[in-house]
Amino acid sequence: MKNFIAKSIKHLQKNSRQILTINQRKIHLDITRNSQFADLAHFESILDKQGVVTNEQVLHNHNNDWTHKYQGHSKLLLKPKTPEEVSQVLSYCNERRLAVVPQGGNTGLVGGSQPVFDEIIVNLSRMNKILEFDESYGIVTAEAGCILQDLHSFLHDKGYLMPLDLGAKGSCQIGGNLATNAGGIHFIRYNSLHANCVGLQVVLANGTILDNITNLRKDNTGYDLKHLFIGAEGTLGVITKSAILCPTLPKYKHLALVSCRKFEDVLELLKKAKLQLSDILQAAEFMDQISMEAVNHMLGFKNPLNKEYPFYALIEVASNNEGKSDSERLFSLLGDTENIVATLKYDISLSTAHYYKIVEEVRLLILSSHEFTDTEKQLIKVTGYGHIGDGNLHLNVAIPGYDSSSLQDKLNAVVDPFVFDYVKNVRGSVSAEHGIGLQKAKYLSYSKTPEMIEYMQHIKDIFDPCGIMNPYKVIMDSKISQ
Amino acid sequence: MKNFIAKSIKHLQKNSRQILTINQRKIHLDITRNSQFADLAHFESILDKQGVVTNEQVLHNHNNDWTHKYQGHSKLLLKPKTPEEVSQVLSYCNERRLAVVPQGGNTGLVGGSQPVFDEIIVNLSRMNKILEFDESYGIVTAEAGCILQDLHSFLHDKGYLMPLDLGAKGSCQIGGNLATNAGGIHFIRYNSLHANCVGLQVVLANGTILDNITNLRKDNTGYDLKHLFIGAEGTLGVITKSAILCPTLPKYKHLALVSCRKFEDVLELLKKAKLQLSDILQAAEFMDQISMEAVNHMLGFKNPLNKEYPFYALIEVASNNEGKSDSERLFSLLGDTENIVATLKYDISLSTAHYYKIVEEVRLLILSSHEFTDTEKQLIKVTGYGHIGDGNLHLNVAIPGYDSSSLQDKLNAVVDPFVFDYVKNVRGSVSAEHGIGLQKAKYLSYSKTPEMIEYMQHIKDIFDPCGIMNPYKVIMDSKISQ
Repeated sequence: MKNFIAKSIKHLQKNSRQILTINQRKIHLDITRNSQFADLAHFESILDKQGVVTNEQVLHNHNNDWTHKYQGHSKLLLKPKTPEEVSQVLSYCNERRLAVVPQGGNTGLVGGSQPVFDEIIVNLSRMNKILEFDESYGIVTAEAGCILQDLHSFLHDKGYLMPLDLGAKGSCQIGGNLATNAGGIHFIRYNSLHANCVGLQVVLANGTILDNITNLRKDNTGYDLKHLFIGAEGTLGVITKSAILCPTLPKYKHLALVSCRKFEDVLELLKKAKLQLSDILQAAEFMDQISMEAVNHMLGFKNPLNKEYPFYALIEVASNNEGKSDSERLFSLLGDTENIVATLKYDISLSTAHYYKIVEEVRLLILSSHEFTDTEKQLIKVTGYGHIGDGNLHLNVAIPGYDSSSLQDKLNAVVDPFVFDYVKNVRGSVSAEHGIGLQKAKYLSYSKTPEMIEYMQHIKDIFDPCGIMNPYKVIMDSKISQ
Repeated sequence: MKNFIAKSIKHLQKNSRQILTINQRKIHLDITRNSQFADLAHFESILDKQGVVTNEQVLHNHNNDWTHKYQGHSKLLLKPKTPEEVSQVLSYCNERRLAVVPQGGNTGLVGGSQPVFDEIIVNLSRMNKILEFDESYGIVTAEAGCILQDLHSFLHDKGYLMPLDLGAKGSCQIGGNLATNAGGIHFIRYNSLHANCVGLQVVLANGTILDNITNLRKDNTGYDLKHLFIGAEGTLGVITKSAILCPTLPKYKHLALVSCRKFEDVLELLKKAKLQLSDILQAAEFMDQISMEAVNHMLGFKNPLNKEYPFYALIEVASNNEGKSDSERLFSLLGDTENIVATLKYDISLSTAHYYKIVEEVRLLILSSHEFTDTEKQLIKVTGYGHIGDGNLHLNVAIPGYDSSSLQDKLNAVVDPFVFDYVKNVRGSVSAEHGIGLQKAKYLSYSKTPEMIEYMQHIKDIFDPCGIMNPYKVIMDSKISQ
């Protein structure tokens, strides 16, 4: 195996700028491969047979993301079964300067869990056990590879639910959710994973197992290190276990899908919902007509209102107050809109004043651009939808058909700088919930000051001094580029 | 001024082991003064006249905590008015190796905000402005010295409330609340400050202003550094501004004070409350009969149930559902029990199985100890009360009268190791919400693994390489002891 991998790495090194797919070209062109990352072997002695995968077909799935936007070239997939195995793998990789990509359910949207070159994939899917449930505080302890849906099912039977709910829950894993600080639909009610994660076990680059697994609701002793790993996208260590605080299952849910003629009406509705329903408000979502059309087209659904409106808002409330239960169909429909085929997907955070304005401005930008022909302008669909209750907009610029790389290149060139500058100028965030990954690593400075980034780099140096953990992601100018 | 201070420091250095008060002796005896910390001057050129205080009477209040347990010997109190002034002060202190204690309302219970020797006190009370309120997300931005009660009042008028509510709210400051990750009564409903702080501005030891003030509900860009400063008790930097997410004010509140014959009945009640009322449960508090007596005695209240029971539980629910409002008197009464005069105050986190057992075990311990005479055993009151909904127990060992230092010394010697060992053995936390401070610095390892502490030390070294920030606290073996 050693030879085989060494050979492939040599090939990759030589061709590192050529092997990237067309879609990736614009993103990766400025990354030079770090020649430190070479030579791997002997993981068979640490892991069992199923734990060491070199099969190309299997690797293909783990090298690619589900939107087919990012493609890595790893030749080795490791699937450890215990934190100790993860520790042995990392400690070996650290000594040998082998780069590693931690991977959960691989459902991310910013290329955070795919290798860029031939980094070793450490996939957590075999560590998928629910370990404990503390009924007195509602704290569930599980291994990192546990599928989010499995946690939901487990907790449902006990009268609890996971605070996190999102479209990919059938395949995403809790470790990946934590590593990316996933947001989702119920963020407005139950807050972020920073709020709900009470304990974490992490394996650091040098193999150290940092054990902060606890069932305690409160613990105020020393620096709260676990928050560093929540949202660090595997660049500081591999999350192996977590303890999550779970709310009890509300008995009754009510949903309202509201049509609006103006975006201002959506905002007015949100304001009222927050003030009048705040204690039971479970979700506040929004979509425009083009998003609605796209969902209906892609999934064969029908607009439940039987008439078109420029905007739609969805308000969900949930409580233990007795009342009629309502259909959740529309709601899951909204969650599924992630399946729209799109070339550009933005996940941004803006104040309400700018929330929808940016969608309109991007439409204007494309219409007024000389880069596109009139036919092309017709093809491009700019849609906005998202968790308006949290100020989180999913701005998509989609080209149905999606096979013209030159059209896409033009789109990147015109829209990308505009959106990122817009967000920077209004002090928004270039990543509300999807993270930084590979896609936005060069845009980190659009949401964080140079001083913040400098200290992030110091933190990176502490936990991953050799820079083996998920290189090229989140912080670009890490040790690996020296 | 320079001479004066230099002289006093010389004196302090010589006598560093002698100057500590009797109450402190047992705690501080093993701390050797770091001779690096010497020589201070010229802050008048940076701050205005009111900003530089050397008056002994004024300093007395800032050198002492309100329980009179900790007494520092600072000769200089600085009261900057802007983050830039804080930056200039710290950068000068960093260059000259002058130790600094950040101080807010000085209401802590673990000696975190008092100087140990003659550290310079940087008090934030003049930075007390509420800067902004973002109504669409309910985010309030305020300077660190803003009094918690002022924030409550400000928000109340707008139909919102602070997620944090505690007995000391009339004098504690939001910066100190954040620095200590204060918990309080509504933790069970609104979660911790880690959950609700969306933005932070911090001045680091070298004067760097780390600006992460944001009004965004969601922001997933890079490592979330702000969490490091929440609960770091001023050992990593001085918090100067914060943005806090606030819930809307519930219109209706209901309170129930429930008497229980057995502690198991309290637990049963809590379990039911959590399952049936979870969506509106605002507080779940607990006290035993000795705590009730102490409150009644100290504050001149009357047991509202007109009969004695071994245990009492208080359940508060709040919502916008219409309904009768109830008196809050009992509730604020409970908050005030902090005023009990006590020699030993423990703030621990335990699973429900051990929650009250430790109170009974400490009583047994004292009764069976040969250290105390029968009369002394009669004097000692062991009480338990706290935020049972969060597993947070306030275990107090009180001696009414409180003037026998030999009795207190014996108490320390007998009870301290027992309680800390008990908590360690059942994997609890030695500080649920009051922090580590000076009091528990040597007990950090009782709740955190050596690896966790090692990386805390690395973090400390990044943000405060010269070790000037609040030395001797939280992490004992920091750079300053080298």
